[in-house]
Amino acid sequence: MQTDAAPPWTTSVDVLAFDIFGTVVDWHGSIAREMQQLYPQVDGDAFALAWRAGYRPAMARVMSGELGWTLIDDLHRMVLDAILPRFGLEHLDAPARRHLNRVWHRLDPWPEAVAALQRLKQRFILTTLSNGNLGLLTRMAKRAGLPWDCVLSAEVFRAYKPDPATYLGVAKVFELPPARVMLVAAHHDDLAGARACGLRTAYVERPLEFGARQPKDVAPQPGNDLHCRDLAALADRLGC
Amino acid sequence: MQTDAAPPWTTSVDVLAFDIFGTVVDWHGSIAREMQQLYPQVDGDAFALAWRAGYRPAMARVMSGELGWTLIDDLHRMVLDAILPRFGLEHLDAPARRHLNRVWHRLDPWPEAVAALQRLKQRFILTTLSNGNLGLLTRMAKRAGLPWDCVLSAEVFRAYKPDPATYLGVAKVFELPPARVMLVAAHHDDLAGARACGLRTAYVERPLEFGARQPKDVAPQPGNDLHCRDLAALADRLGC
Repeated sequence: MQTDAAPPWTTSVDVLAFDIFGTVVDWHGSIAREMQQLYPQVDGDAFALAWRAGYRPAMARVMSGELGWTLIDDLHRMVLDAILPRFGLEHLDAPARRHLNRVWHRLDPWPEAVAALQRLKQRFILTTLSNGNLGLLTRMAKRAGLPWDCVLSAEVFRAYKPDPATYLGVAKVFELPPARVMLVAAHHDDLAGARACGLRTAYVERPLEFGARQPKDVAPQPGNDLHCRDLAALADRLGC
Repeated sequence: MQTDAAPPWTTSVDVLAFDIFGTVVDWHGSIAREMQQLYPQVDGDAFALAWRAGYRPAMARVMSGELGWTLIDDLHRMVLDAILPRFGLEHLDAPARRHLNRVWHRLDPWPEAVAALQRLKQRFILTTLSNGNLGLLTRMAKRAGLPWDCVLSAEVFRAYKPDPATYLGVAKVFELPPARVMLVAAHHDDLAGARACGLRTAYVERPLEFGARQPKDVAPQPGNDLHCRDLAALADRLGC
């Protein structure tokens, strides 16, 4: 269903680059569900939030040069090791920690995502643009059926978003001016970084990204080319 | 159809990495056909061979440091510009040269390739490992329907095959020991490079890679784990 006519500039967009964690997959719900199964004595909701909360500070240590270049799998593991005692799980051995850390490869997509991406894929080149590493993104996509045409990551550009090298890197890979690439994300700082580099931007509401106990403000903010409820609405707006 | 039982070590292989030009797609036939359409006065067979013959010397200039890091799209264009006068096409303007250079994004797969890859994808992670750049590989795959799980390239590792950084790079991306990755290629030097890094190797016969006027010796050579007529035979041997 097409709710409005697609804006005329959409015909000049060739590539849609997707943020992943929170935008395409539900990290909070997936981690909370897996914790409920593996360690039902733990508050899975709080555990997921604590794990994710360690993510930006860990990336900041890499970006500042305090840590060398580090894959997100390894940053997730550092944060995991740090939070386990807080949840009474300090006894987990190395294989158990490794298995749990791989939950980031097993995140479930938001319900409409796969079908919407299949629609968008008919007209656009679909690529990931995530701080997640290539192995993580590939295994996640294979399990979840995410139909990427290309898998791009901070790992390729050796910089995390919102470093301009990542947004401009996508345009360069596809030999396109930045305005022919659109970033799709549920996070305004990510979209602002892309916009500053000349990319088109589409905001996707994900009010439950942090769980039902902590709903997110998804009010429209100025500056984005599109504001969509979900990826199905994005496909509608783009006339797919 | 499974002609032999799959060798027992195949159960420990998780990733198949594919050479592309000649192994998965028919560069010679595709270029000769496009030349026949665009410039029927030119010997398309000879033109395709001349273009491809310039490829290794151009990469060697990059690897020696004479040229800085260069995408294959740009190397193809350098070689194209050099050979056009030999074929009476020195009058082609920049848009015509650009269009012709993009023929490398429009190469057709060998007839059995797409269906065989779909079979292999049920059990293995499928990635490209090509000297072709990411944009080229992505657009080729989208047009031809090649169902990659991941697109890896010399561009990611900043080194061309047979540099060990490429083969070991695939193992590292997927956090696997090299023996759990198999390179699939129609070229013995590529396979030898992978083998020296500890990867498994599968040779694929492509007797007509250089066209019907120049059939290739596809006799088995020692050292490869598998020797297959084509990708369907590879899927048979791997029990897919």
